[in-house]
Amino acid sequence: MVAANVAAPGDRERMTAKTDQRAELKRRFAIIRRSTEELCRSLTPEDYVLQSMPDASPVKWHLAHTSWFFETFVLAKAGLPPLHSAYGYLFNSYYNAVGERHCRPRRGLLSRPTAAEVYRYRAQIDERVVSQIDSLGQARFADLAPVIELGLHHEQQHQELLLTDIKHAFAQNPLRPAYRDGGPGAADPSAPRADPPALGWIGYAEGVAEIGWAGEGFAFDNEGPRHRVYQRTYQLADRLVTSGEYLDFIAEGGYRRPDLWLSEGWAAAGEQGWEAPLYWERREGRFQAMSLDGMRDIDPAEPVCHVSYYEADAYARFAGARLPTEAEWEIAAASARIEGNFVESGALHPAALRLPEAAGPSQLFGDVWEWTASGYSPYPGFKPMDGALGEYNGKFMCNQLVLRGGSCATPVSHIRATYRNFFPPQARWQFSGIRLARDAVS
Amino acid sequence: MVAANVAAPGDRERMTAKTDQRAELKRRFAIIRRSTEELCRSLTPEDYVLQSMPDASPVKWHLAHTSWFFETFVLAKAGLPPLHSAYGYLFNSYYNAVGERHCRPRRGLLSRPTAAEVYRYRAQIDERVVSQIDSLGQARFADLAPVIELGLHHEQQHQELLLTDIKHAFAQNPLRPAYRDGGPGAADPSAPRADPPALGWIGYAEGVAEIGWAGEGFAFDNEGPRHRVYQRTYQLADRLVTSGEYLDFIAEGGYRRPDLWLSEGWAAAGEQGWEAPLYWERREGRFQAMSLDGMRDIDPAEPVCHVSYYEADAYARFAGARLPTEAEWEIAAASARIEGNFVESGALHPAALRLPEAAGPSQLFGDVWEWTASGYSPYPGFKPMDGALGEYNGKFMCNQLVLRGGSCATPVSHIRATYRNFFPPQARWQFSGIRLARDAVS
Amino acid sequence: MVAANVAAPGDRERMTAKTDQRAELKRRFAIIRRSTEELCRSLTPEDYVLQSMPDASPVKWHLAHTSWFFETFVLAKAGLPPLHSAYGYLFNSYYNAVGERHCRPRRGLLSRPTAAEVYRYRAQIDERVVSQIDSLGQARFADLAPVIELGLHHEQQHQELLLTDIKHAFAQNPLRPAYRDGGPGAADPSAPRADPPALGWIGYAEGVAEIGWAGEGFAFDNEGPRHRVYQRTYQLADRLVTSGEYLDFIAEGGYRRPDLWLSEGWAAAGEQGWEAPLYWERREGRFQAMSLDGMRDIDPAEPVCHVSYYEADAYARFAGARLPTEAEWEIAAASARIEGNFVESGALHPAALRLPEAAGPSQLFGDVWEWTASGYSPYPGFKPMDGALGEYNGKFMCNQLVLRGGSCATPVSHIRATYRNFFPPQARWQFSGIRLARDAVS
Amino acid sequence: MVAANVAAPGDRERMTAKTDQRAELKRRFAIIRRSTEELCRSLTPEDYVLQSMPDASPVKWHLAHTSWFFETFVLAKAGLPPLHSAYGYLFNSYYNAVGERHCRPRRGLLSRPTAAEVYRYRAQIDERVVSQIDSLGQARFADLAPVIELGLHHEQQHQELLLTDIKHAFAQNPLRPAYRDGGPGAADPSAPRADPPALGWIGYAEGVAEIGWAGEGFAFDNEGPRHRVYQRTYQLADRLVTSGEYLDFIAEGGYRRPDLWLSEGWAAAGEQGWEAPLYWERREGRFQAMSLDGMRDIDPAEPVCHVSYYEADAYARFAGARLPTEAEWEIAAASARIEGNFVESGALHPAALRLPEAAGPSQLFGDVWEWTASGYSPYPGFKPMDGALGEYNGKFMCNQLVLRGGSCATPVSHIRATYRNFFPPQARWQFSGIRLARDAVS
Repeated sequence: MVAANVAAPGDRERMTAKTDQRAELKRRFAIIRRSTEELCRSLTPEDYVLQSMPDASPVKWHLAHTSWFFETFVLAKAGLPPLHSAYGYLFNSYYNAVGERHCRPRRGLLSRPTAAEVYRYRAQIDERVVSQIDSLGQARFADLAPVIELGLHHEQQHQELLLTDIKHAFAQNPLRPAYRDGGPGAADPSAPRADPPALGWIGYAEGVAEIGWAGEGFAFDNEGPRHRVYQRTYQLADRLVTSGEYLDFIAEGGYRRPDLWLSEGWAAAGEQGWEAPLYWERREGRFQAMSLDGMRDIDPAEPVCHVSYYEADAYARFAGARLPTEAEWEIAAASARIEGNFVESGALHPAALRLPEAAGPSQLFGDVWEWTASGYSPYPGFKPMDGALGEYNGKFMCNQLVLRGGSCATPVSHIRATYRNFFPPQARWQFSGIRLARDAVS
Repeated sequence: MVAANVAAPGDRERMTAKTDQRAELKRRFAIIRRSTEELCRSLTPEDYVLQSMPDASPVKWHLAHTSWFFETFVLAKAGLPPLHSAYGYLFNSYYNAVGERHCRPRRGLLSRPTAAEVYRYRAQIDERVVSQIDSLGQARFADLAPVIELGLHHEQQHQELLLTDIKHAFAQNPLRPAYRDGGPGAADPSAPRADPPALGWIGYAEGVAEIGWAGEGFAFDNEGPRHRVYQRTYQLADRLVTSGEYLDFIAEGGYRRPDLWLSEGWAAAGEQGWEAPLYWERREGRFQAMSLDGMRDIDPAEPVCHVSYYEADAYARFAGARLPTEAEWEIAAASARIEGNFVESGALHPAALRLPEAAGPSQLFGDVWEWTASGYSPYPGFKPMDGALGEYNGKFMCNQLVLRGGSCATPVSHIRATYRNFFPPQARWQFSGIRLARDAVS
Repeated sequence: MVAANVAAPGDRERMTAKTDQRAELKRRFAIIRRSTEELCRSLTPEDYVLQSMPDASPVKWHLAHTSWFFETFVLAKAGLPPLHSAYGYLFNSYYNAVGERHCRPRRGLLSRPTAAEVYRYRAQIDERVVSQIDSLGQARFADLAPVIELGLHHEQQHQELLLTDIKHAFAQNPLRPAYRDGGPGAADPSAPRADPPALGWIGYAEGVAEIGWAGEGFAFDNEGPRHRVYQRTYQLADRLVTSGEYLDFIAEGGYRRPDLWLSEGWAAAGEQGWEAPLYWERREGRFQAMSLDGMRDIDPAEPVCHVSYYEADAYARFAGARLPTEAEWEIAAASARIEGNFVESGALHPAALRLPEAAGPSQLFGDVWEWTASGYSPYPGFKPMDGALGEYNGKFMCNQLVLRGGSCATPVSHIRATYRNFFPPQARWQFSGIRLARDAVS
Repeated sequence: MVAANVAAPGDRERMTAKTDQRAELKRRFAIIRRSTEELCRSLTPEDYVLQSMPDASPVKWHLAHTSWFFETFVLAKAGLPPLHSAYGYLFNSYYNAVGERHCRPRRGLLSRPTAAEVYRYRAQIDERVVSQIDSLGQARFADLAPVIELGLHHEQQHQELLLTDIKHAFAQNPLRPAYRDGGPGAADPSAPRADPPALGWIGYAEGVAEIGWAGEGFAFDNEGPRHRVYQRTYQLADRLVTSGEYLDFIAEGGYRRPDLWLSEGWAAAGEQGWEAPLYWERREGRFQAMSLDGMRDIDPAEPVCHVSYYEADAYARFAGARLPTEAEWEIAAASARIEGNFVESGALHPAALRLPEAAGPSQLFGDVWEWTASGYSPYPGFKPMDGALGEYNGKFMCNQLVLRGGSCATPVSHIRATYRNFFPPQARWQFSGIRLARDAVS
């Protein structure tokens, strides 16, 4: 928690520390709030309204909901009345303890408040939060600063969702519009494409290990407590599965062989007509896929993306391997640097691996969220946050799988080796991909 | 048909007549196309996107589809290629003969083309149509002028749908926004409200009558041919059923008495939880209802509106009467003046009756479409239009009921005594109301 | 009504008449009740339970419901308490006025009461009804005899439904079991098959005609009152459409040409994957179809059967004709003898036409119910029966089409020229077929 | 595996051992096959057909499917052709590798083959299997004996399903019929009812433990391999949660407090209207519940039963505890005797605890399956069986929770401490109940 950062020698220093802490919080608040809006720079007012499925939300809703979060869990605690009485109903996501709310699948039926009104709402909330950071007494500040910090990580989660949701919405439009005008930021399509290195395996020894969050700085409640697990020897692939490898899976009948699939996955694939990852379309004999820059050819060197857990699991079986557990992933990632293709690169698309890590697996962070074989369950001794914020994570611990490592739509400052993302096994609209594991070959 | 208006004495006069006919068509074209856009004056870009149910369409879609109609059935016949290759797919409504089309329930998932782009498209189509009116050779013009005329009546139909659809969309928003800024146009809420006159009955004699369209001017194919029907004596109510009368139906358990209802109506009411007309909400002990000016109290003197056929039929049974057949309605309306509360009044809401007609039923035209007991079937000898336009009306002649007389959202120039509107019996989002009939009391 | 048959000269004769009337009623009661049970002779106890879709009911339910009808509308009126308190709930079909009832789509979840228990129930009801016929005072008898008569016609309707429902249930079984052991009754498969005569047309003159029931004997309330209609000249096909002709429709792409179909029909055909009449299966390059004797080859000379209204209508358009209205059908049938292939023939399947009628259309009665283009609406001046029995017919007068003439599953004593059967346009599991009409060729 | 039991000293002894092994297998085969049929003794032919939901199957289907299992995986391997060509299609459950199969939700639409025919099929299969046991060469026998053994455990699983499925089917019948004539077997309703002992906690120490199957005798593939887990200290409740305790949960608003529920559980409870365990009905102010002996009063001393995982989890949170993991359960059960209320008691209902265990938790085996907090995942190093039988367990390892300990419908010879049953979290029709766990109080 942020408050834990505060050291306390003499009075003068303490004052400075306080000032610095508040200044630092305001700085980060400004950056993160602004970056959300920058993600929307190329959008038209019409784009803000779209909700293409119940799991996704309109851009406008993301903008307003993240503001409502600060209004509800920070400003209201500080005694400020809501700016608009109806917004609590419209922009509460799922906090039962906070009251009734608008039906999730109907978020796309709201043209009002308009995008412009929502931006005004954001500006007002920003002003109020900053004002509170400046003016709160120290005790109150110590209570609320961690909630502001939580709100910023919450905002970063919605930055990623905003991108995946608008991508899904645009993919429903027969025009397949691009999300941005200028095209890819960092990517250079004229750069020579090299085949990725052959897939190798990195071994890990047997023993009792510790996983989960402990220490200073921010982490979500679901990342703790840190605890021991018994881990047998295993091997982890040294890079992600590529689209080229996945094309082999398709070509060799992967979508027509029930022996490769979990029973529910086979049913889902049949009902929904899956024949390739989400967004892939066969046009004139080859695959193209929707991206945030519109339709583009599949690059075989890129990590495969937009696959469900069912597809990841079937691919792993096809490859004679399996998906890693979250413990296996975290043990490998614990010592890795958090580097990679994040939202800041501007690519907004997984990138082919150029330079493998000298030692240890490459691409652990960024590019695609990596499906693990671990159900999303509470760690031993897990305690949700108190009050309404206890609904943040804990109540979703059923029928979901853990994903690790962040994606090309994740802010780099948002990810950790202990970070537990989670989605139901049929979800495909996130930037989700595949890393293989296998038992040690004896 | 328009072409039939052309008389033909001498050459000079014929030339003048031709010129006049083209000028008149351009004049009407300009007025009607412009009035569609004027209906959208108060809308935000976000509003244009909303589709609140599969039966309704976004405002933007109405604007584009009516233009596509001219592009497809006029400009393409005149040899002009389409302006945007994808628009034929996006904005075809239901013409199988013209090609594949976007799935109707997914029209609300399209933010692009934007409203601004659709307005540009409209302007281009307008320019092209006018240019064709000016330049077509006479034979070609004689072919296409009736189609332009049809396109204008088609546009007027969509003007009404645009209003009923946006009303439905706004009613889904918990904010219940008003469709327009200025509030009601012609209505004067400070005017003294008088109770409507007691309901009286007007009798009609037995005999063979003729109904259906014949003669000059425009009519839809489904209004003809004119034909004989045998009609027994009957009586028609001299005004519409009011909201006050309908409140009695509710108060006396109308929605809880299956003996009053058709079997399918009773099932629909149960499944959808009907307890009052669409848009009525009980707030603090009394009914309010959504209007195009936002929420307002129910005025007991107003014609009841937004009822399904099932509710109209149940109310009639409750009142010891029945709904009229379309022949009964048309016989009564044949000699009536087309006057009433149409879209031009600016009320956009049914109005209480002030001055009953001296003779004959009041409120036959305007205010609300009147459900008849007649299934929507072809008249004896009915022939649909040739080609794709044959899909305009004929293929819907099943499971729908005929409604007559136009509503407060209908342009006055659009309605006729022979006009046959049609909706399925469960439809409630149109301005649909009730006129009673009964067998002659012997 | 039965009571109307009673003449009244002298006392002695009146007594005799009364006796005869009661004896006659008992005689018909015994025959009709017994014939229901004879239809079940080949069934196993397991067969009695099946409900293959919400529209169909288990055999056991038909047996019990028809008994419940007498118990509720005759015996209870005579003061007798119900034999089983729960049966009123289980075996009420749709009479709201009589009380709550078991959910229709769940009738197939009831193994108890068993078939044996239901037969005991039937026997007890039979005994009680006969006892009432014997013992009721004359006034009471005059009241109840028409209801008993109604109950017998009701039982005959369920005889037909029992056959169509078990056929549908058996068709769901991959074993395609035959309904009866012995195979076809009257049909002689070794008889030489002749092509049916070429289709001819019979013309009818313009004028005011009368249709609907009037006079003595039994008729359902929906057949009256007799009333005048204005009828233009028309022509009626002199026989039914055959399976061979329908095969041409299929071969020429009838199921792939939207221009031939009503819009709702086209949608239904697409959603449900219609490519041929219900029960037709393409096996080894040719069509076979499920019958009550199991799978058999399509006989091109037979009347086509198990088509929906949508298919009948599309076929008519394909053939350059249309379906007749019910008035057109009834005018033609008014003078025809009620002869044909009814349930008594034992064929339980439509039969190829051997000997056309000397004059007038053939096959008007029996073989297949003939779809008409007439929506099922009340006749002018229609009054439903009083009380709960008013729910028998009237409340279904919406979204259904009238069918005429009876089928190979109809008892001959059940049909009349004025008889109005009705089903929704998508229904296919009845023995429903096609007769063409057309406007007079000028 | 059975084959592993065979020791091999001298020839003579080996022959005897072989003979004994075959005799023993035949003995168990006869007992288990017969006991399935004995469960059906009180059923009518109509009862055999019922399928009350897609998750459940008709009794007849269970009888046939378990026979098909032997026919497919034993007799066909031994070279015998199937007895009925269509049965492979009708009675395959979910083995894709074996071929196409009848649609699961439509199993209740099959009246044929009749129950009598299915019994004939069973007798034929029995005869053939016994004949194979007698006649197979030793090598072939060594291959197939483990499959026969598997088939017997499979049969025992279906014995339990047969009971839970028919209970569910009978509960849909408004008559709420009893499954058997004679009423409860072992239970003595006149016995004095005592309150169960207060709930106590048993503590377990921290450390690395081993769980999973290893050793001789039969176990399913999903029970292995035996492997190490790191386990913190924890406490396990010394008995099951009772209906009386669950009544407190209901009375204190447990079904109306979202803070107690997982998000998906809260949604399921709302959509399906849960207000109590499955089968509980409030009648005249108190709860009764359907049992296999018909409706009976809730006994507060009985273990609560027919709760979903969501309800079990919500109850645990209400009680300030949590559900155990499967490792926690198995560590506690490893040393417990397999005693309890199994199907052999004839109670077919969970029983109130009379005599708690001297040491260790009571009721670990029998009465109710105990929901654990563990998702159903493969154990480290899990290998499914080869071939089609690999579909037996592994492909269901997603979106299911593990349950432990068997129930009052489980045969005692079927259960083990390592046995992993699994159902999706919303399932309620199994005999599923609640044991609490908690972290060690420091």
